[in-house]
Amino acid sequence: MPAPNQALELREARAPDLEPGAALLQTLYSEVCGTDVHLHHGRLAGVPYPIVPGHVSVGTIAALRGRIVDVHGDAFREGDLVTFLDVHETCNHCYHCLVARQPTRCPSRRVYGITYGLSEGLLGGWAEAIWMKPGVKMVRLPDDLDPEVFIGGGCGLVTALHAVDIARLRLGESVAVLGVGPVGQSMVALAALSGAGEVVAIGEPRDRLDFAHRMGASTTLGLEMPHEGRLAVVRAMTGGRGADVVLEATGSPDAVAQALDLVRDGGRVVIAGHYTDNGPVTIHPHWQVNRKHVELRGCWGSEFSHFYRAVDLAHRFGDRVPWREMVSARYRLDDADEALEAVASREVLKALIAPSGRG
Amino acid sequence: MPAPNQALELREARAPDLEPGAALLQTLYSEVCGTDVHLHHGRLAGVPYPIVPGHVSVGTIAALRGRIVDVHGDAFREGDLVTFLDVHETCNHCYHCLVARQPTRCPSRRVYGITYGLSEGLLGGWAEAIWMKPGVKMVRLPDDLDPEVFIGGGCGLVTALHAVDIARLRLGESVAVLGVGPVGQSMVALAALSGAGEVVAIGEPRDRLDFAHRMGASTTLGLEMPHEGRLAVVRAMTGGRGADVVLEATGSPDAVAQALDLVRDGGRVVIAGHYTDNGPVTIHPHWQVNRKHVELRGCWGSEFSHFYRAVDLAHRFGDRVPWREMVSARYRLDDADEALEAVASREVLKALIAPSGRG
Amino acid sequence: MPAPNQALELREARAPDLEPGAALLQTLYSEVCGTDVHLHHGRLAGVPYPIVPGHVSVGTIAALRGRIVDVHGDAFREGDLVTFLDVHETCNHCYHCLVARQPTRCPSRRVYGITYGLSEGLLGGWAEAIWMKPGVKMVRLPDDLDPEVFIGGGCGLVTALHAVDIARLRLGESVAVLGVGPVGQSMVALAALSGAGEVVAIGEPRDRLDFAHRMGASTTLGLEMPHEGRLAVVRAMTGGRGADVVLEATGSPDAVAQALDLVRDGGRVVIAGHYTDNGPVTIHPHWQVNRKHVELRGCWGSEFSHFYRAVDLAHRFGDRVPWREMVSARYRLDDADEALEAVASREVLKALIAPSGRG
Amino acid sequence: MPAPNQALELREARAPDLEPGAALLQTLYSEVCGTDVHLHHGRLAGVPYPIVPGHVSVGTIAALRGRIVDVHGDAFREGDLVTFLDVHETCNHCYHCLVARQPTRCPSRRVYGITYGLSEGLLGGWAEAIWMKPGVKMVRLPDDLDPEVFIGGGCGLVTALHAVDIARLRLGESVAVLGVGPVGQSMVALAALSGAGEVVAIGEPRDRLDFAHRMGASTTLGLEMPHEGRLAVVRAMTGGRGADVVLEATGSPDAVAQALDLVRDGGRVVIAGHYTDNGPVTIHPHWQVNRKHVELRGCWGSEFSHFYRAVDLAHRFGDRVPWREMVSARYRLDDADEALEAVASREVLKALIAPSGRG
Repeated sequence: MPAPNQALELREARAPDLEPGAALLQTLYSEVCGTDVHLHHGRLAGVPYPIVPGHVSVGTIAALRGRIVDVHGDAFREGDLVTFLDVHETCNHCYHCLVARQPTRCPSRRVYGITYGLSEGLLGGWAEAIWMKPGVKMVRLPDDLDPEVFIGGGCGLVTALHAVDIARLRLGESVAVLGVGPVGQSMVALAALSGAGEVVAIGEPRDRLDFAHRMGASTTLGLEMPHEGRLAVVRAMTGGRGADVVLEATGSPDAVAQALDLVRDGGRVVIAGHYTDNGPVTIHPHWQVNRKHVELRGCWGSEFSHFYRAVDLAHRFGDRVPWREMVSARYRLDDADEALEAVASREVLKALIAPSGRG
Repeated sequence: MPAPNQALELREARAPDLEPGAALLQTLYSEVCGTDVHLHHGRLAGVPYPIVPGHVSVGTIAALRGRIVDVHGDAFREGDLVTFLDVHETCNHCYHCLVARQPTRCPSRRVYGITYGLSEGLLGGWAEAIWMKPGVKMVRLPDDLDPEVFIGGGCGLVTALHAVDIARLRLGESVAVLGVGPVGQSMVALAALSGAGEVVAIGEPRDRLDFAHRMGASTTLGLEMPHEGRLAVVRAMTGGRGADVVLEATGSPDAVAQALDLVRDGGRVVIAGHYTDNGPVTIHPHWQVNRKHVELRGCWGSEFSHFYRAVDLAHRFGDRVPWREMVSARYRLDDADEALEAVASREVLKALIAPSGRG
Repeated sequence: MPAPNQALELREARAPDLEPGAALLQTLYSEVCGTDVHLHHGRLAGVPYPIVPGHVSVGTIAALRGRIVDVHGDAFREGDLVTFLDVHETCNHCYHCLVARQPTRCPSRRVYGITYGLSEGLLGGWAEAIWMKPGVKMVRLPDDLDPEVFIGGGCGLVTALHAVDIARLRLGESVAVLGVGPVGQSMVALAALSGAGEVVAIGEPRDRLDFAHRMGASTTLGLEMPHEGRLAVVRAMTGGRGADVVLEATGSPDAVAQALDLVRDGGRVVIAGHYTDNGPVTIHPHWQVNRKHVELRGCWGSEFSHFYRAVDLAHRFGDRVPWREMVSARYRLDDADEALEAVASREVLKALIAPSGRG
Repeated sequence: MPAPNQALELREARAPDLEPGAALLQTLYSEVCGTDVHLHHGRLAGVPYPIVPGHVSVGTIAALRGRIVDVHGDAFREGDLVTFLDVHETCNHCYHCLVARQPTRCPSRRVYGITYGLSEGLLGGWAEAIWMKPGVKMVRLPDDLDPEVFIGGGCGLVTALHAVDIARLRLGESVAVLGVGPVGQSMVALAALSGAGEVVAIGEPRDRLDFAHRMGASTTLGLEMPHEGRLAVVRAMTGGRGADVVLEATGSPDAVAQALDLVRDGGRVVIAGHYTDNGPVTIHPHWQVNRKHVELRGCWGSEFSHFYRAVDLAHRFGDRVPWREMVSARYRLDDADEALEAVASREVLKALIAPSGRG
């Protein structure tokens, strides 16, 4: 991705010299997600174009220097199938890492495929190989976990897990999920896996709503129904009160105001998964927040714990949740432009770059 | 208060027939608070005018029928000096009381001086006597607690305690309090008592800011400084990050947007103390909430636990916190109009109605 | 139950005069649970024998006086099929009800079938009719909820829900459940419904362990294996660490010490479901609690919220969880002695008294 | 400290070759704490004798290699007065660091003065110089913070802060602190700073109880009164209920059982500050934990956040809390044996090693 709004280019890059603790992955899959579309439209600040996009990826270790261990202390070996936390260089040395213990707000944080430039090396997934810098946190995929199940969930699953954790769901609580893109779909699945009561998915288009049913939604509502109608339905399903929890994953500012309507008095709203300033919305804070006694939480990025647990959940529940089928298209590296367009137009739910052509 | 925007009238009312479990208080003091001004301006919905205003009050038990006990099981007696939770008839039978366990959102909730009409009896504090209906929760004032210390804190103290509880302050955290009316002043005091680090009070006029220093603020900022300047000061005091906790008690919608700027990434904001729809504000939710990973909480009303503990805190810390001096004027019943005006104009920080003329 | 360790007697009792707000249930089912065995052995203090046992029951409203509404404000009618919270007269007036907000520790608490004596009326479920005193909190069973599904879960389900709430399970966490009686079985089910990772049930006999598999356990361990062996298995399943959460429902003091071994460093243990002093155990608190940085919680009784939600969960998940099959025997009133014996000997998992002979 | 139970020896050690990121401190003070006595008695497992004792220390940077920054990104310079987190090499790579986010349970954790041997270098504070290995987290002492105020609090203050955080104190809650050594004294101070209501310190000898009053205790109880008497006093002070929170810092297993008696139903107990297996105690778990519905938490070690905030609290509240006066004796390096003895005999509340002779 040479610059915003320019066609992608296929470039040759020099293989990195692996310093001790580094590794090289042969890319199997890398995701194409909404953030990549925003990158292409130049909507994120501080991106050092040209970049190699692709933040959540799966690959095989082609080479490694020295002993590199996983979270259990087991050494990685060539040939291992792994994924890795795209967020790197949280410093473990600053106020947010150490005192506030919120490393997703670490100012040194660098993200593969987003805030590393091509000039720094092969630090993005839309490439035949990815350079694992020393300290990058890799997670081995279990033998019996189809990598497409994990990458089907992908960064949306990781983000959704963080949001669902923050929502502190209790058994039987009702949940409304706003947005049926990859983040919203995984929110639906995780809410259902958590023993939620009603799980209402709200969004469009229809085929995504249908898919949300398969992910675990008990009810879906399309945007052809006006907000007031959706509000009436959610209230009718919840004894007139509104949803115990609302999870917002549309990226639309209006959805935040709607979430404050949809949630019951005393309920919880989590905003997640959007990484740009998507503009303003008008709320009546004393009426919609103070009087309603609600909790509204922003949920930025993910920590390693969410990433690690997301692999575990894909492994454990991949037979119950159709994450694998979220992958609706696979593209070769030289078709990446096409992949971006398919995601931008919402023609596909999730696209993968498969440099090796597999799939 | 016969109707919105009409002069108050002094009326004779019949003494209530006390049913078993009821009591009659001889009023010592009743507060005049900002909500009374809103009542007078007709800004609260569903108020059954004419009403007897006055929600937080102190009085002496003049009569009681049957055995009425306090929270410790000790029986009340004639002559006891008490206050009582103005919020009555939370039903302990509905979803919010029993399942959500958020009785401040109980739909049956009735409030002395606000949602009871005069036609129902002497159910407000601006009267020589107040009818304690059966089940009203009275709290005895300890002998060595000057009633003016408690009523000086009054409903602002109770509201502030709920908000500070919700903020889950840790020792040494920095706090910004927006608003220096009675609620804001008690927030300052409670933050300081909780071992907060910097406590910055923001508001006007200057004499209230000066008073906030006496309540425990380490820094005060007036509104003559623009928001950007105040933001710069708060950041400079907090290592560039912003306040760990922001408590909003202005009732101004703009203050909510400012709170989202003033709070550090990953911090907490609580909105408290406003009981009307005070209008709209524009926020950028994905930038100010999602990216900042903040928690924004609305805090509506108070439960008995806050009320009970507020009496205890007034008793315990009344020598360290100048709640008593928050009472800047006392009025007789027939001067209640004047009291309202003094509060509306912010000429006084807190006014009391003292039917017996004491003070 | 005339007195401890005496044969049960069938007595005729006078139908209560229903005061306003009272109702009479025609009993459909009433549970026989371990606490009834303890009652029969005289192990609970302060029980006013003779009593009518039976705390969790289902019945049809045969008569009612005045308007009685459910939590949604809907009036009950004759013929409605209901259950009710056996815990009554939590006062909503004492320190634990109002300030600590832990009504299960309310000293006024009375329990149907346990702390009401026969001299006070038909206040237990092992009877043809049960007197609903005014204020007893009834919950309607939905039309499509088989009452045997709910009563199959019964008080064990309610207790388990409280314990699982307190454990604050996160998706994918490993859980060990100690005890496979009715409480343990529902803990297994609720942990699995909450999206737990491994759910290990530990107890005996074998048929109960087999049933635990059907409730959702991924692994079961019998007591023929010594504690050290079970510990080794649990550690092997959890990366060497131990379970994230251990739920203790055996009533055996030794199990609490074992729970502290089984839990991982930094994990959580909840003790639930036992209402007598079952004796001592030796722990090394600085080694097993301080060094391990664990949280150990006691969970006493249940609040209405757990009861209400238990009905909802039975309704919602009764097709996935075989609560109905936990009922392994039904007894007529005059066979209640036999029912007690069957429960005491653990010959049956759950016995019901069915006065009408249904089932 | 050549080996357990042997006299200390003064040895010459080679100055370390500072690798990039390393520094050398000239020691100003190093604490002598109870754990050092345990080290001397050989009560901690896995200690690589001979060691240089001394975990919490203050010193001046005598040399540093490369740019080393503090948590705010500001570079350290020669001459800076600093302290440092004695816990080093938590790996930020294992399950406990990354997934459970409980780094105090990291298995790679090494502690200056405890788990580093002399053979690895000058890695303890009872020495003229201390080698700051790369990555050791130093904290600058503010100019206006007397280093004796901070070291007076020392590791006891850090431990107490972790425990008080875990206890989640609310304004006005009653606290009982068991133990009046350095950890208990700081618990008293932090509870009082947090706005606790009654703060009862229990322990001996009398002069330490007197000091606890100065730290903020409202009441003290000596061990000459039997446990039952102390229990009666605490209950009498708390409406018959017991303390809302009990903090245990005696290291005596019996105190844990007493804590379960002293806490009110539904209250919280935290065990902190003891790093050995101090033996068994008998509890009745279903009576003392289950029925009482209490929370019992172990609190192991401290994270950097507690250490950093402890410096801030010493700075901020050093004028209100007499931490400085906790230092009752200063010793030269060659009198370290004497210091150990004074601490072991509880003759002094806190002893310092001052290699430079200052003080």
